[in-house]
Amino acid sequence: MIRLGVDAMGGDFAPGNVILGAIDALSCMDSETELVLIGDSRCITEVCRHYGVDSGNFVIVNASQKIEMGERPVEAYERKKDSSINIGFRSLAEGRLDAFASAGNTGAMLVGSVRTLGLLPGIIRPCISALVPLFNGQNMLILDVGLNTDARPEMLCQFAVLGSLYAKTVMGIARPRVALLNIGAEPGKGDSTTAGAYRMLEKGGGDFDFVGNMEANALFNGGMADVLVTEGFVGNICLKQTEGMYELIARLGVAHPFFKRFNYEYYGGTPVLGITAPVIIGHGVSTPVAIKNMILEAEKVVRCNLVSRLKDALAIENKGV
Amino acid sequence: MIRLGVDAMGGDFAPGNVILGAIDALSCMDSETELVLIGDSRCITEVCRHYGVDSGNFVIVNASQKIEMGERPVEAYERKKDSSINIGFRSLAEGRLDAFASAGNTGAMLVGSVRTLGLLPGIIRPCISALVPLFNGQNMLILDVGLNTDARPEMLCQFAVLGSLYAKTVMGIARPRVALLNIGAEPGKGDSTTAGAYRMLEKGGGDFDFVGNMEANALFNGGMADVLVTEGFVGNICLKQTEGMYELIARLGVAHPFFKRFNYEYYGGTPVLGITAPVIIGHGVSTPVAIKNMILEAEKVVRCNLVSRLKDALAIENKGV
Repeated sequence: MIRLGVDAMGGDFAPGNVILGAIDALSCMDSETELVLIGDSRCITEVCRHYGVDSGNFVIVNASQKIEMGERPVEAYERKKDSSINIGFRSLAEGRLDAFASAGNTGAMLVGSVRTLGLLPGIIRPCISALVPLFNGQNMLILDVGLNTDARPEMLCQFAVLGSLYAKTVMGIARPRVALLNIGAEPGKGDSTTAGAYRMLEKGGGDFDFVGNMEANALFNGGMADVLVTEGFVGNICLKQTEGMYELIARLGVAHPFFKRFNYEYYGGTPVLGITAPVIIGHGVSTPVAIKNMILEAEKVVRCNLVSRLKDALAIENKGV
Repeated sequence: MIRLGVDAMGGDFAPGNVILGAIDALSCMDSETELVLIGDSRCITEVCRHYGVDSGNFVIVNASQKIEMGERPVEAYERKKDSSINIGFRSLAEGRLDAFASAGNTGAMLVGSVRTLGLLPGIIRPCISALVPLFNGQNMLILDVGLNTDARPEMLCQFAVLGSLYAKTVMGIARPRVALLNIGAEPGKGDSTTAGAYRMLEKGGGDFDFVGNMEANALFNGGMADVLVTEGFVGNICLKQTEGMYELIARLGVAHPFFKRFNYEYYGGTPVLGITAPVIIGHGVSTPVAIKNMILEAEKVVRCNLVSRLKDALAIENKGV
């Protein structure tokens, strides 16, 4: 049996959207999977009643506190020990959950990932990824999309390792091609972080093919790479600009099936890569559809054994160095 | 009389596209403006003949060398003293031209700007800008879009000054609103460069209104800012991603008048801000339309007295500090 913990208080429209998304997710998963809603149990029961959802579908774990979206992550995580996010991480660390997913305060999710779960051996910083829809019908993984800023070159190299392992394990790509997001194609181009990462990656040695620099105008083309590595500040801006473009297209009333693939709702959430257990972060504005897909992503990550496969691969990697 | 120097050898499709663009530009400018084509004069005359263009429309200045697109800028600029780019900068520095425009090697254009012309007093690094089309029908200036990487916070503050002066002088905005491109709205968000620039800009003092952080999903919305400041690596990726989106939309066959405004051809070129004379950099892949608009931008920058207005404003700024 798989037990997925879901932060019922996470996101701008919690717990309403979380409950609606969770009930939809249940209908898509096999009966072996149990959903554990963590939050204000009275509120959860009431909202279930309001929406005509049988709260008996879920295991409900009470949390007397909630970390708000705008709170300072470290402070809030340290102070609110009985918050849904804290309880989620503790339950995961103690083996009472197989994964924990939240559309709440991203910073607090990062703090919990690092402090309560811890990093995989050799990892400097964890990261998060996103899928970019490509013209050729496939998707490209881009990471880091915002968990770190001021990354160093060696961190970008680790993102390449983590991203290629995700591409193998979850996307089923036998030997991922990894590119660096840069402002020119030639080696030596770019800021010192990216140019430094290029020098390290071109030496090879990883279980992926480094294919060089990719410029942002090729972002949606497809064909060159399966995984695109960048620093978190840049990756987050890339992702948000894509989001802005999607919204603009919607406002202009322009229709094309391709644009639907830009809808963040279909991706729902992204696993934190580089930590010792499966944690999925959702978008703060999550709709029920997004929450459903965040939960399905959590289930997929557990079923793929992503974390233990990352751990094994890193052990080989670390041995090799 | 205004004398505009144009690098006939600059760009992937030179000199053909340059000559075709230049002849179109002439028909849009008043007869007071003279176009000086700098390059291989025999080649220019031949291409003019090939296209049925009367080479007598231009002043032709021979250059026996050419800096290629992929050459290392500093090295090439130092070695090829008789290249079209070198001659353009020398002519401008010696007052034989009022502006110099090229769609050639951007790095070499930067080297010429700094070494042959020099920076305005107090300026640490020059920068280039681009116009982002907004949903509300207006444009927002974004800078730096790629002349610098690894910028420091005080450089971002100067981009704010230069950008707001451009907005006043060329775009006619009385008191520009300046925002910082960031990954969150709150102060303190972002990488150390952006967070540092925020702390400096919030103190005020500039002849513009600092309106805080802007996230990339609001890029095309309009309403919040007239000038968006960012580091060159990030700005270049933003710009190229917009270009990629424009190309994707064209490939999908989706039509909407708004998207036409994303066509780089209509902007043609961008002035190098922070140097002692008007220099316009065009896109390497420039079509004749793009070249025409690059030349018209050069004329506009000269007519607006952008450089002397920047110089005056910086003198006041420097005095104030």
